[in-house]
Amino acid sequence: MQSLEVYREAFSREIQQAVPMREPRHLYEPVNYILALGGKRIRPLLTLMAAEIFGADFTKAMPAALAVELFHNFSLIHDDIMDEAPTRRGKETVHTKWDLNTGILSGDAMLILAYQFFEDYPPETFRELAKLFSKTALEVCEGQQWDVEFEHRTDVTIPEYLKMIEYKTAVLLGAALKMGGIVAGTSDRNCAGIYHFGRLLGIAFQLQDDYLDSFGDPKDFGKQVGGDIIENKKTFLYLKAFEFADDNQRAELSQLFSTNTEDKVDRVKAIFTATRAADAIREEVRNYTAEAFRHLDTMEISPVAKQALTKFGEGLMNRTM
Amino acid sequence: MQSLEVYREAFSREIQQAVPMREPRHLYEPVNYILALGGKRIRPLLTLMAAEIFGADFTKAMPAALAVELFHNFSLIHDDIMDEAPTRRGKETVHTKWDLNTGILSGDAMLILAYQFFEDYPPETFRELAKLFSKTALEVCEGQQWDVEFEHRTDVTIPEYLKMIEYKTAVLLGAALKMGGIVAGTSDRNCAGIYHFGRLLGIAFQLQDDYLDSFGDPKDFGKQVGGDIIENKKTFLYLKAFEFADDNQRAELSQLFSTNTEDKVDRVKAIFTATRAADAIREEVRNYTAEAFRHLDTMEISPVAKQALTKFGEGLMNRTM
Repeated sequence: MQSLEVYREAFSREIQQAVPMREPRHLYEPVNYILALGGKRIRPLLTLMAAEIFGADFTKAMPAALAVELFHNFSLIHDDIMDEAPTRRGKETVHTKWDLNTGILSGDAMLILAYQFFEDYPPETFRELAKLFSKTALEVCEGQQWDVEFEHRTDVTIPEYLKMIEYKTAVLLGAALKMGGIVAGTSDRNCAGIYHFGRLLGIAFQLQDDYLDSFGDPKDFGKQVGGDIIENKKTFLYLKAFEFADDNQRAELSQLFSTNTEDKVDRVKAIFTATRAADAIREEVRNYTAEAFRHLDTMEISPVAKQALTKFGEGLMNRTM
Repeated sequence: MQSLEVYREAFSREIQQAVPMREPRHLYEPVNYILALGGKRIRPLLTLMAAEIFGADFTKAMPAALAVELFHNFSLIHDDIMDEAPTRRGKETVHTKWDLNTGILSGDAMLILAYQFFEDYPPETFRELAKLFSKTALEVCEGQQWDVEFEHRTDVTIPEYLKMIEYKTAVLLGAALKMGGIVAGTSDRNCAGIYHFGRLLGIAFQLQDDYLDSFGDPKDFGKQVGGDIIENKKTFLYLKAFEFADDNQRAELSQLFSTNTEDKVDRVKAIFTATRAADAIREEVRNYTAEAFRHLDTMEISPVAKQALTKFGEGLMNRTM
């Protein structure tokens, strides 16, 4: 097994030349602009790693990895429009640097370009990859739609919220891993195992992100601690606190989420703690993580491969809880 | 050979149930809304007809025809956003009836749903269809990008304009026909022939549309005659008139295209006629149509099939010139 660093370096070289600049420039410049912004490249690395886990040379999975990264960046461009986000990774978003039309059209082009990377594979593999890709891409759209709708709804349930984060972010992690399995030609059982490993770990990661957004150490957490609270986001923590709260706490929480006072973050966090919502989310993170790891035992893979996945999963979840 | 009416009826039944309503409603409602607006369904009918031309039952091409129509409507939704169009086929556009986010996201979903229809075919066919589809879809995006850019440019050349209409509208007609050929498993030679027949006819049709927009009979022409002139669109007629004009005519044309006076349409039309730009576009339409029909002779198809394509082509071009 190669190290993640080897995958990352190989992938960085490939992504730079993945979409050659051509006319019309204003369609392809934004594509290369967002791809060059970097990011952790976690999804394509999963594809490369999974190919090796299942016995193929990781380079064989490079086109699939590129497709995954193109798709992820397509969704970032269109999501940034919907969220009216001015910056992404410290730089202007595409629709800010160019304009709305460019954001829409370059995003569309990236989605199509993603499919084109599968053309490097033989028909059977192509079909399987494209099928998984379409299913996943549609789920990501559905997740984004739920996310947009939840902003205006006051009756979001915990299962709905879990489904939203599963579709919006977790299924793509599962699919990225499974694509490596498809390219390597592994068994359906292994494909299913690695998919659920990624999907469940994705949910755990997202819930952990919710937790750390309120309770993370400002030194370690990349974003502003308390950001979700300031933006009145109805995260798992909020929904759980609302469920567990007594009448007074519920009234206070509603009140706090309708204004922006100086002590808002501290007071909301106090309610998250007092209602045991903070404990509940940590428990959920542990459960989803454990369930993800259980899927490792359903697969027929070498001990070295299993160790690599375990190490990756632990690394992903090993943020200050 | 079935008549176009038979294809149209069969297609109308299928498109109604092509995308079942499901959650999240606000993602799938707009999809069904725009599909229900109807339109001429010319692209999917081409796919069905081509399948029969090459010896298959037309129903075999239904999933490909649905993919083509889904793609076409995806592009309408996103184009309507970019053009800030309030209505489409006499009804509100998706982004007007819902909002910008819904327009972007429902459009994205339709593009993905289009690919999913190919999953009904075996791997080899699937790959060939998806490959042609991706290439065409990307060209349509490029055509749209040129179109948007041309609005702000004063140096657009005739070859650039021809390439724009080829990409934005003509290649999809060629691809729709070729998909029928792929589904029927016809030869590469036939696939190429039918593709170019559709592509060239598409260019001829678009140029004819440019001509009729200025010189059509208001009784026959669906849109407002003179609409392009009022909107200062740099169509083939305008570009050609500008090329052929003497200094006085050129100055007058520039002047007319910078204001909106009452006699604008008549005066611009007079220049189109005087410079012989109107003759030039009619000549181009004849040339592209003839070139399209020449491709019919490169194909190995039955006389009945050839007759059907000829009739279709003549019907398409038989508007008042």
